[in-house]
Formats: sequence, structure tokens, C-alpha cells
Amino acid sequence: MSQVLGIDVGGTKIAVGVSGADGPEIAARERLDTGPGTLARALAAGRRLDGAPAAVGFSTTGVIRDGVVRLSPNVPGWDGLELPRLLAEEYGDIPVAIDNDVNAAAAAELRWGALRGVSTAVYLNLGTGLAAALIVGGQVIPGAHGAAGEIGYLQVEPGEPAFADGHVPLEERVSGSGLARRAAALLGRPTTTAELLTRYAPQPANGHASGPDAAVRDLVAGTLRLLAASVANLCVTLDPERLVIGGGMMGASDVIMPGILAEVRRAVPFAPEVRQARFTDDAPLLGALALAHAAL
Amino acid sequence: MSQVLGIDVGGTKIAVGVSGADGPEIAARERLDTGPGTLARALAAGRRLDGAPAAVGFSTTGVIRDGVVRLSPNVPGWDGLELPRLLAEEYGDIPVAIDNDVNAAAAAELRWGALRGVSTAVYLNLGTGLAAALIVGGQVIPGAHGAAGEIGYLQVEPGEPAFADGHVPLEERVSGSGLARRAAALLGRPTTTAELLTRYAPQPANGHASGPDAAVRDLVAGTLRLLAASVANLCVTLDPERLVIGGGMMGASDVIMPGILAEVRRAVPFAPEVRQARFTDDAPLLGALALAHAAL
Repeated sequence: MSQVLGIDVGGTKIAVGVSGADGPEIAARERLDTGPGTLARALAAGRRLDGAPAAVGFSTTGVIRDGVVRLSPNVPGWDGLELPRLLAEEYGDIPVAIDNDVNAAAAAELRWGALRGVSTAVYLNLGTGLAAALIVGGQVIPGAHGAAGEIGYLQVEPGEPAFADGHVPLEERVSGSGLARRAAALLGRPTTTAELLTRYAPQPANGHASGPDAAVRDLVAGTLRLLAASVANLCVTLDPERLVIGGGMMGASDVIMPGILAEVRRAVPFAPEVRQARFTDDAPLLGALALAHAAL
Repeated sequence: MSQVLGIDVGGTKIAVGVSGADGPEIAARERLDTGPGTLARALAAGRRLDGAPAAVGFSTTGVIRDGVVRLSPNVPGWDGLELPRLLAEEYGDIPVAIDNDVNAAAAAELRWGALRGVSTAVYLNLGTGLAAALIVGGQVIPGAHGAAGEIGYLQVEPGEPAFADGHVPLEERVSGSGLARRAAALLGRPTTTAELLTRYAPQPANGHASGPDAAVRDLVAGTLRLLAASVANLCVTLDPERLVIGGGMMGASDVIMPGILAEVRRAVPFAPEVRQARFTDDAPLLGALALAHAAL
């Protein structure tokens, strides 16, 4: 049977999979760690799964600009890689589609999930990083340099350290990694987003706590407020009919969603419908497979 | 000669004009004040200029949603008006295109001005109000409810009074009307944006002033900083190839542009080209004429 191949290179993991029918099922897969030789090992895994796929979809951390990967400092050897050329060498005449991981996840939601049938929409990824995909006319729009929806770079305080100063202002505050780093400094020990969003979730009318726990609770509450306001602002800007939220932080969707829902209804002139993403852990790999199916 | 008719209903003025050739020239025009009977008087002026135009373009304050004007509280009788139906009654089979004033001005820049040939872009209107048009694929995108680019509704402080509370947070701070209102309270007398942007423009290393003048200078400087950061954030979100800035505040472009240019270069991963709009005072009427030409 003719299959398509999907490859997802994320910040810490590589996922490679194949699918036959046009649907969100992965027929076979491999998982690898990123590190030295990321691309070579990903391509080798692809050959093991299917040496002659009908099409290839590639989901990558960062963005593709002028034929190279950019905005991807975390994977060794990845930033600056000529990914499109290297994939053309590997696959020859086989159609190859490349996009960043969040746009790819949005492509999967558009093809098979919570974004089916929409025209103007926002897909928000709340994970280790923070980014969105913007959907116009039923398609993910790339922007002029592949960076549309890279809302991690939004400034929160006018004039604060930003992109040119080596900062990713909003992402440093509200992404999973940013929140955990700030909370660890307060607690004096490592912590995780999952712990923070359960143990330190905002509680109604709790005015008596003090010490580090209270400070962490304030941090989590303030982070969720900033996240909700930022998401509402994104909806003000694009005026979507639907907002779909995915990513690892949605494991605590019961803590995250109410604030976003309330803020979208309060601050957006025409509030969009808000839904959780259909796909979670597999989202970028399914995204790569959706890109591959679309490239057929 | 076959002509097209353009009608622009703004916050205080109605402009009606006709053009023949497909270019930014207005062959004849009338100006009226808004007030009771705005639409009837505008249509009558149109009949006087050309009783049988080949197409009609209509530029309006607010947005069109579900067949009525919304977000337009300032023109008596305008909010809630069934503008599309009433124009269809007036013009019958003549093609009619309607859009809001900022989107119409962007259409004129796309057809004849500083946005010619671009694919992804932002048109920013700095006037009495604050709004943008988002251009994707060479077209102004409406959003799901006609409100894409209505950035006046952006929150500045998370959780502050916003749309549902009757506020337009960013517009209240950085539009011409918002700035003049706040400065007047400090000065104890009426003032205008033009006065503020000339007499109270930020000056390098001026640390000795005090009293109301110093407070107003701080207000103007802070407003320009917030404006620049907000514009940079809009560019982060959409990743445009070009940013074009128009509107009445651009009479003081020498005061406004440097801060925006610097902030766009500092805070946007891929900084767009920044240009002044080609059209100034006539922008919304030229926009209406551009809509009419496009509808032919």
C-alpha cells in the first residue's frame, strides 16, 4: 500500500511515522532523541519505516527562512541547517512539505481535528514554548518570512528586552519552560509545569497563605492572567471564528481554559468559539503526516 | 464617460466623489457633515455627482456584521443601520462594495499606493481612532466578523477594563483623541494631537522640566513608546513584509516614525520594511473609489 512519511524534529525528541489512509492514524513509528546527527538519524529511521513513501511531511522546531532553519537554538546543529536542500537530496522527486511544528499541528487539526471546516482561526500551542498558527481562508498562513504567529516574541512591557536583545519576552513568562524556571527560583528547587498547574493553581478567596508557596501561587495566577489577556489580544487582532488550544500544558486544561474563555468573552468584540485541540502528544507528528497527505 | 462613485462616512465628515480612470484622482467631490440623515444626504450627494455610476464603493466607520453597522457609536443613527440592504435599494444592479474606512484606505494603498505588489502586510491608521488592516495574499482580510485589525481593543494591562466594559483600551491611550483627552486633563485646557506632537515631543536629555509641561511631555513620550511597542507586536504576530502607516497623526510623522522604526527593528524577528502611506486626507474616499474599481 502506498504510504506517506512524517518526520517531526522537536526540541528534545524526533518522531518518525508512516500512515496509509488519509486519517489521523499512525501505522508505524519510531522515536529518537535529538542530538548529534539529528537529521541523518531521522532520515535513517524514515528509510526503515518506508524506503519509498508517496510523499513526505516534515515538522521542525524553528522556522524555515531563505532555505535554512532559523529561530531554533536548542537542537545542536539545527539552526542554519539547509533543510529543504537536504530533504530534496534524500527524496528526489518525492513531494516534500516542510513547516514548523505548530503550523504542522494546526494542519492536522485542519485536516482531521478541531479546525475542520473553519476559514479564519487561531491554533494556539501551549507547550514548552509558546506559538500560534494563524489560519486564513482555511489555510495556515506563513507570513512573509515563515514567522507568522510566533507570539512568544511579543513584548509585555513596552521597551523591555526583546528579540534583538536575545529575549523571547512573552514566551519567557507564560510558556511551560518559562513558568517552571521562575517558580523554581522562588521555591529553591526544581519543579514542573504539571506540578505548578495542579498544586499551585489559583484558588478562590485564599488570602492567608504566605511564604514561597504564596509567592508561587501568585506567580501561577499572574501567568494565567497574562496568558489569557495575550490570547484575547491575538483574537482581537485576527478576529477568528474559532480558537483551538493544544500543546502539553493542556494536560491541565481545567486550570487553563476557564481564564482564557472568560477573557476572550470579555475583551474580544466578537468572541470566537474556543475548543481544545483533538490531538495532544502526537500533534506535531500527525501534523507532518497531514502535510504529507496535503502534498500528494 | 463611465465613472465609479465613492462614499466615505467617517466619524464627523461625509465625503462623496467620482473617478473615471483607474487611478487615485477624484474627478468631482462633495463634503458634508455627519448628523441626522447621514445616509440620505450622502446618497443625495452621490446622485448629484453621478446618477448612474458603473460601480459604488462605500467606506464606513465601524464594521459591517450580519448586514448591519457595528462598533460605530459616534455617528447618530449609524450603529445598527442595515447599510448593505439600503445600498442595494438605492443602486439595484450596480455593483456595490462596502468596507470599513481603514480597510478601504488600505485598498487604495494596495491599488495605487505604498502597498502595491505586496502579499503580506499591515496598514496602520493613526488618526482620531486606532485601527489596522491586515493584508494576506495581496488582499485585505476581513476576519470572521469583519473586525480583523481592530487593534484599538487590545488590552495593555491584563485584566483591565476592555470591550465588555465599554472600553477600547489601546485606542484610549494612543489614538489622537485618546492622547488629546489625557493631555487636556493635565494641562487644564483643551489641546490637539498636532500641538502635543510638536510642542511636547520627546526631547533628548531634558531632565530639568517640571510641572504640567513636564507631565505632558512624559505622557507624549510614554504614548509614543506604547504605540511603537504595539506596532512591533502586530508585526510579530502577522510577520508582514511591509508596514505602511497613514492617518491624520502622520502630519507629525517626524515625531512618530523614528520610535516605530527603532522598535520594529529591535523587537520583530524579521523586521518588515516601513513606509508612510501615499494617501493622507483623502485616504478613505480614495479607498471607497478603490473598492468601486475593484467591484467593476
